[in-house]
Amino acid sequence: MSDPNESSSSDDDPLRYHVDGELVPAAEASVSVEDRGFAYGDAAFETMRAYGGDLFRWEAHADRLADTCETLGLDHGIGDAELKRRVDETLAANDLADAYVKLSITRGVQPGTLDPDPEVDPTVVVIAKPLPRGGVGSDPVHDGPAALQTTKTRKPADRAIPAAAKTHNYLNGILARLELRVTGADEALMLDPDGHVAEGATSNLFFVDGTALKTPSLDGPILPGVTRATVIDVAESEGIPVKEGTFAPDAVREADEAFLTNSTWEVRPVATVDGIAVDGGGGGDDGEGVAGPLTTLLSRLFDRRIEERHYDGERL
Amino acid sequence: MSDPNESSSSDDDPLRYHVDGELVPAAEASVSVEDRGFAYGDAAFETMRAYGGDLFRWEAHADRLADTCETLGLDHGIGDAELKRRVDETLAANDLADAYVKLSITRGVQPGTLDPDPEVDPTVVVIAKPLPRGGVGSDPVHDGPAALQTTKTRKPADRAIPAAAKTHNYLNGILARLELRVTGADEALMLDPDGHVAEGATSNLFFVDGTALKTPSLDGPILPGVTRATVIDVAESEGIPVKEGTFAPDAVREADEAFLTNSTWEVRPVATVDGIAVDGGGGGDDGEGVAGPLTTLLSRLFDRRIEERHYDGERL
Repeated sequence: MSDPNESSSSDDDPLRYHVDGELVPAAEASVSVEDRGFAYGDAAFETMRAYGGDLFRWEAHADRLADTCETLGLDHGIGDAELKRRVDETLAANDLADAYVKLSITRGVQPGTLDPDPEVDPTVVVIAKPLPRGGVGSDPVHDGPAALQTTKTRKPADRAIPAAAKTHNYLNGILARLELRVTGADEALMLDPDGHVAEGATSNLFFVDGTALKTPSLDGPILPGVTRATVIDVAESEGIPVKEGTFAPDAVREADEAFLTNSTWEVRPVATVDGIAVDGGGGGDDGEGVAGPLTTLLSRLFDRRIEERHYDGERL
Repeated sequence: MSDPNESSSSDDDPLRYHVDGELVPAAEASVSVEDRGFAYGDAAFETMRAYGGDLFRWEAHADRLADTCETLGLDHGIGDAELKRRVDETLAANDLADAYVKLSITRGVQPGTLDPDPEVDPTVVVIAKPLPRGGVGSDPVHDGPAALQTTKTRKPADRAIPAAAKTHNYLNGILARLELRVTGADEALMLDPDGHVAEGATSNLFFVDGTALKTPSLDGPILPGVTRATVIDVAESEGIPVKEGTFAPDAVREADEAFLTNSTWEVRPVATVDGIAVDGGGGGDDGEGVAGPLTTLLSRLFDRRIEERHYDGERL
């Protein structure tokens, strides 16, 4: 399977997507060329997984979506329950139990200028595609361990583009991924404006130094990933020390283990950083063997959370 | 007329837009929800004016569009002549002589991930709306002189989001405009990461200090505006000294005159900066009287360029 970060492809059945309150065939699912989501990327979104028909950590995603909308000044007036109903309807219409789900809310069509009008007729889009579940004993959804490459493209400062807002403005990540065309790497290691480690183009970064799990702090321009929060919670539940802080790129290059997280990849081991193999794994970059012991443990514990089909921890 | 920076509204006739090679009624002009222009703002665009049926400075816009596509790694394979043909066809179909035109090229629908596939089936969209011409003796298209307000939202550094690329990623400008809701100003005075003056959310900035015309240099995160270049050319043709440099916000606040430029506003006087009246104009913020002598001169000379219906200067 190709990298399913944004979606999984399916050529079997014509899927149906949810657009503006209606289920429509995927081929007809469209938005106006004057929708601000198209014209300006003026939209909030969440990428989620459904396991066994249930959205994993829906409340955390709904909370972050609300935070993004608040940053955008986008008062769409649609309750979380109604949003979830549309997602569930989309899953049911496509007979999907294990799925990739993308929920977007745009500011809709507004006349005139770049100024956002407070009066909003939002456009709500739900895309769902089959995606085999991760979980104990399952195949992972990613293309094996990641090759990370530090990019010249830096994350913007929060006062230019707030990293916590998950919007349809993805140029920064696209430019970083474009740099990988010449290196053969498959995820960017992006630095903040001061040169500290931030995150991947579509993932959060963790690394292991001795017995501690380290990850860039949310004080930097970092997306507060739902999977990131779950991994931290899982680690702390097991008594593994977690240090959120500010780290130089060399700390990652010299780490014992490293892995990436996002909703579709879940926990994805890192095989190489800037072409150098990460120590402490099984060596090689051709399979599961690369994952170090702590990465493997956290991945299994994460799987168990999914198996439980619910999440009892504090909402992170 | 409300601020026509992005468009002028017309409720009279159903307009037709050009989408993917076809003219379609505006109400049906749409793109797939999986088009990367919608999903990621992964699209290049130009906003232009047509005067008397002719696109003003088409070559300069076509060149900048090509530069944006190069930055995006978007090899769409459509020649400038074909792009112009589609714009002209749109103007003709709507019987438009004096118009606002927006031409967008997206990377189209691509399966899977954020990684841009080099194989592109682009989506080309042309939107055209009536917009009365500026020019000698005509009413200006803007809402009178601008009220500028310095925003907390800063321009991103070029290594995060290159300012010279004109894309559908407009979150930075939207966040700046959102700040104006509480101040009543109508354009943002945005600073670069170091706190120097950069530009407006949708305009370039000029100011007058003594006899010199000053504007932030393109060394900073500044869009290389086509109108900006025309104004510089016009000024230099008249022997007016032009200084492109790095300026503190106070230099603008203390300027004798200030004005903004973009393709729809052309030359728009600034009445106030952070609530303080700009000196040297006619006083007040209720009309043409606010424009200072150099702003008025440049505005008239710019009008004359349009009257000439062609542009003989060096391509800037």
